[in-house]
Amino acid sequence: MKFNENLANLVSYEAGKPIELVVREYGIDAKDVIKLASNENPYGTSPAVVKAVGEIVNKMHLYPDDSYFELKAALASKFGVSEKSIVIGSGSDQIIEFAVHAKANANKGILTAGITFAMYEIYAKAAGAKVFKTESKEHDLGEFLQIYKANKDEIGVIFLCVPNNPLGGCLDAEEIYKFLEQIDADTLVVIDGAYQEFAKFKDAKKEIKPKGLIAKFPNAIYLGTFSKAYGLGGMRVGYGIGEESVMNELGKLRAPFNITTLSLKAAIEALKDEEFVKMTLETNFKEMKKYEKFADLHDIKRLPSFTNFIVFEFERQNASEIAQNLLKKGIILRDLKGYGLNAIRITIGLPSQNDVVLKQIEENLK
Amino acid sequence: MKFNENLANLVSYEAGKPIELVVREYGIDAKDVIKLASNENPYGTSPAVVKAVGEIVNKMHLYPDDSYFELKAALASKFGVSEKSIVIGSGSDQIIEFAVHAKANANKGILTAGITFAMYEIYAKAAGAKVFKTESKEHDLGEFLQIYKANKDEIGVIFLCVPNNPLGGCLDAEEIYKFLEQIDADTLVVIDGAYQEFAKFKDAKKEIKPKGLIAKFPNAIYLGTFSKAYGLGGMRVGYGIGEESVMNELGKLRAPFNITTLSLKAAIEALKDEEFVKMTLETNFKEMKKYEKFADLHDIKRLPSFTNFIVFEFERQNASEIAQNLLKKGIILRDLKGYGLNAIRITIGLPSQNDVVLKQIEENLK
Repeated sequence: MKFNENLANLVSYEAGKPIELVVREYGIDAKDVIKLASNENPYGTSPAVVKAVGEIVNKMHLYPDDSYFELKAALASKFGVSEKSIVIGSGSDQIIEFAVHAKANANKGILTAGITFAMYEIYAKAAGAKVFKTESKEHDLGEFLQIYKANKDEIGVIFLCVPNNPLGGCLDAEEIYKFLEQIDADTLVVIDGAYQEFAKFKDAKKEIKPKGLIAKFPNAIYLGTFSKAYGLGGMRVGYGIGEESVMNELGKLRAPFNITTLSLKAAIEALKDEEFVKMTLETNFKEMKKYEKFADLHDIKRLPSFTNFIVFEFERQNASEIAQNLLKKGIILRDLKGYGLNAIRITIGLPSQNDVVLKQIEENLK
Repeated sequence: MKFNENLANLVSYEAGKPIELVVREYGIDAKDVIKLASNENPYGTSPAVVKAVGEIVNKMHLYPDDSYFELKAALASKFGVSEKSIVIGSGSDQIIEFAVHAKANANKGILTAGITFAMYEIYAKAAGAKVFKTESKEHDLGEFLQIYKANKDEIGVIFLCVPNNPLGGCLDAEEIYKFLEQIDADTLVVIDGAYQEFAKFKDAKKEIKPKGLIAKFPNAIYLGTFSKAYGLGGMRVGYGIGEESVMNELGKLRAPFNITTLSLKAAIEALKDEEFVKMTLETNFKEMKKYEKFADLHDIKRLPSFTNFIVFEFERQNASEIAQNLLKKGIILRDLKGYGLNAIRITIGLPSQNDVVLKQIEENLK
């Protein structure tokens, strides 16, 4: 059977290895596996959320309120925007997909950083859209602008990952606003804030305020997620915030019931426990220091991180080998070979997990 | 901002009204609302599933095993097909979307029944594909063939909804096989079996066996869901079964983690409790008799149903008015006005719910 051309060169996203796989392949007990590969919250989810969801597991047969009334009201209140400025996605990934399908096509491509979240490119290719990338790995807005100006007619969407996954760096809000001033009103700029909670906690200059952003730049949208700081990676809830007329168009692409009944409850309850998020952020950066110190001690190149992960770039050792050796011991890290880097990305885990991981990496440096 | 043309005339799916809305708008207590509008399982979910999911609510921070290893193994075993023949979707809706994006485009449209599941058309329009429909409301395969032969070059996907939502009728398996023999190997035929459990329970002639189907017709795929008979509407899990090379292409369009960690567990456990499904099916058709008897008594046109819902078509009364009157009393039914029918679709509920609904409809006939 012949399929649409776009599928020919489409390669799926390589997800972090699941605990179940390590159990199956290496016979390690699930409780002994340390998974620091997918930037999940090592503290789990707020106990209040766990309780609230536990109380409605007998409602799994019921579709969610597809208007997402309560969740949108809570987000609208949190960010000081209208409910109509918000679209809920199955993870913020899905809002990326909506943005691509709304603005990109065979004639209008996307522009991204050299190394950034892989789904921008995957969704673009699935839509038959061309992908422009900067030579620079991290976001170099000067280079973005250069490419944009030279190819304006062919670029429909610009993606800025702030902070940038899988590298960890983060643009200042001011830089982004200056950049936006030079972008045409008809080009959609997606500010992916999946890790914004971490970045703004570490450095206030990194904070993107959706309300101000969309008021000044109606061609920009902000993406947020419950997967990281809010500890709900497995529940797939994200959101996009943008000017109402823009979100109305993106919202047309949302299929009904795109999040589950339990996910909706979880997200609503998660917004009520900001203390849990604060604890997450505080411990994250405290523990990250262990990794920084370790890297400096062992002369490993580390990239500055405004997220809940850190990247170790190796010169003498082979990163894939290290990741593979640790995997056999039940430690799952993310090998960044697929991004063309001799590096591993490590989610900052629990203190006890971080100690084990660093000890095991040290073994591999000998 | 200018958006892709396909969005201009795109209208979202009108989901059944949620309980929360009736609570908000009419001040009725949630526990007093009878929702028979979305074909959810009135018996809820298997208690074993509720228990199993309840036990992992503390795992919401973890992404699911994106290979869906265990679920695919269980489905493969149930249907006697290979794991590679299966793609998991966020509801079978998402497999519809994959089928459209894989085969339809500006030059290749889709062909559906006159009145059928609305998402076929919505996904097609979002992809800029033309929609061919039969004049007949229910599936008339003669008319399908006529339209297909006259427009072969412009039709990439044929959707057969077996049984057909929102009407309830169901083609025989043999009719479908004969139809498939006349369809080109390059045209994808999607057999949407969301309500197959109900149909084959009522009449063995309706049963589509995915294994035999795809062995004989590699251009056909079968869709199933956990939303109806398995009582997991709110958890969004469906699947597509097809020839391996076809599913490999459709699978490329699946974003990672397209179902939640709790949904994955729920689906795996649901497959272990076929007794719950059997009870659902038995009580469904027993209760449906009440509706049939009522319709015959009051001279209401009823369509034969092989599903968990029944359609009442009115001649003298206004169906929308009846639906609206019942809504005010906390009874949510589906007005089919949007499909051009003076009819309401009623999910077969619990015995006590059905009695109340019929009594209220009777009030409106006076």
